[in-house]
Amino acid sequence: MTASTSRRPPAEQARLDAALIELFERQITFNQILGLKVTSVTAGNVRGRFEMKPDLVGHYAHGRLHGGVIASVLDAMGGLALMAAQGERHASEGAAQVMHRFMRFGTIDLRVDFLRQGVGRHFDVTTRVTRLGGRVGSVQMELVNDEGTLIATASGAYNLT
Amino acid sequence: MTASTSRRPPAEQARLDAALIELFERQITFNQILGLKVTSVTAGNVRGRFEMKPDLVGHYAHGRLHGGVIASVLDAMGGLALMAAQGERHASEGAAQVMHRFMRFGTIDLRVDFLRQGVGRHFDVTTRVTRLGGRVGSVQMELVNDEGTLIATASGAYNLT
Amino acid sequence: MTASTSRRPPAEQARLDAALIELFERQITFNQILGLKVTSVTAGNVRGRFEMKPDLVGHYAHGRLHGGVIASVLDAMGGLALMAAQGERHASEGAAQVMHRFMRFGTIDLRVDFLRQGVGRHFDVTTRVTRLGGRVGSVQMELVNDEGTLIATASGAYNLT
Amino acid sequence: MTASTSRRPPAEQARLDAALIELFERQITFNQILGLKVTSVTAGNVRGRFEMKPDLVGHYAHGRLHGGVIASVLDAMGGLALMAAQGERHASEGAAQVMHRFMRFGTIDLRVDFLRQGVGRHFDVTTRVTRLGGRVGSVQMELVNDEGTLIATASGAYNLT
Repeated sequence: MTASTSRRPPAEQARLDAALIELFERQITFNQILGLKVTSVTAGNVRGRFEMKPDLVGHYAHGRLHGGVIASVLDAMGGLALMAAQGERHASEGAAQVMHRFMRFGTIDLRVDFLRQGVGRHFDVTTRVTRLGGRVGSVQMELVNDEGTLIATASGAYNLT
Repeated sequence: MTASTSRRPPAEQARLDAALIELFERQITFNQILGLKVTSVTAGNVRGRFEMKPDLVGHYAHGRLHGGVIASVLDAMGGLALMAAQGERHASEGAAQVMHRFMRFGTIDLRVDFLRQGVGRHFDVTTRVTRLGGRVGSVQMELVNDEGTLIATASGAYNLT
Repeated sequence: MTASTSRRPPAEQARLDAALIELFERQITFNQILGLKVTSVTAGNVRGRFEMKPDLVGHYAHGRLHGGVIASVLDAMGGLALMAAQGERHASEGAAQVMHRFMRFGTIDLRVDFLRQGVGRHFDVTTRVTRLGGRVGSVQMELVNDEGTLIATASGAYNLT
Repeated sequence: MTASTSRRPPAEQARLDAALIELFERQITFNQILGLKVTSVTAGNVRGRFEMKPDLVGHYAHGRLHGGVIASVLDAMGGLALMAAQGERHASEGAAQVMHRFMRFGTIDLRVDFLRQGVGRHFDVTTRVTRLGGRVGSVQMELVNDEGTLIATASGAYNLT
């Protein structure tokens, strides 16, 4: 999780970052439904944001996020955090090679703690990779609203490739 | 969780079932996005179904369900199973009273095990209430595809009211 | 998870079963503290039992199982269920070879739902393998007391070798 | 979770802290088996420690902690963190009253991520209360060895009283 000794050349790293964001925001269809945007893709500091919108609401009378939306964004951002960490670990690989590796990523399991009502104008997700093993990665995720209130935490295990 | 001794009159029960389904399929906006339909709302046998569609896909090249979609439907169906169980437990209450009770339901936490790729034409969810306490309910959920393959299991704890 | 086409010769299978039980009940020290015994080691039907005793109690005034005891036995039995399933899958391997494989097993993560107080004279654990992948296995476990009351459920993911 | 406006008089707070530690280390029998000691009981900073010993080992040939031991100490410390937080919230209550409240605490569910092998001479547990609701509390726990290596993380939901 910490700095690798041999870093990817800046231009190649920028290509990889762009490819990761393109994959995440566009090719993963459901992330578009959620409106999930990557705000940082640096290994060790992967962050995302999405805006509240009517589609994401649980009961319409409450105007708060559906629990499934919260689970979805936390699951997705946990996977992205591991992708960035893998990208850093395999710094000798080109962007295309790394992207190929990511195609077979998958969530093994996920726990979400819904701590407070998902009320806010926008929401930010932060991530912390707690294990980057040979085959399995683990990540903790947190969701806060635009006032910094902690809405949910999660931990997930993922298959790495 | 099994049959209560005093049952609600059939007409009133039908009203409650219809109100539950209306709440679940229409008033919970995100369930519409998912296309989630209730196929049985009997206490002890709450089931749902949804069709595969492009919006629900993770990576477009794979054509399988986004993990967040799976988490969303399992979370939602677990809550519905507890609503039906609560409706049975409070069989002396009218439908309106029961529905009022449901407005304050909330998921405490959820675990999802993603066992196999979410590939299929449609998907069915079954539920099993394992605890119906005074304040907390627990449910196990399962998702199978149209060939009966087990795609995911989940367990959730919910605040009851 | 179901019957393998090529089965191990009965004498060799008996040797493997005995080795598994020996490993589980004697070589895993903490299982001795728990007093955990294997009652069935057949793939697809791995079961265990332990007796209530003062050491396993949470608060002494309540006389019920410590939550950690419940988590411990469910975690251990989930691992054993996967060992038995792996033993069946690799039916062409001898007992020694299979046992060697098991030395590197490990729990990735575990969720336990504590449904009712752990009160009883003895407790039985049942298991259900829900995924036997190439690298990761998933199991669901249940704990009932001597009256058949469901005390706890769990699900775990394990590294396979 | 942060400082309450009205604090308990120092002598009364010391009585409560001592009663909490006595409950935790002595009256909870299984915690004695684990050898779990409280190193800080301040609300917002509840910590514990235990020494490696043969009884706590999984497979004897590996000399590492049984997963159930890890789950046990994390579950126990999470409960203690909520007790301390409740003690602070109800600062107008005397120690006896607060202790009475704790007798009915219970874990709803627990997730443990086993990140690295439990190898070390002693182990430290830290806790972070993420929700202190009216009825449900949530806590995150971490286990490190004597070299500061992160061995496991956990999150639990608990019934409050």
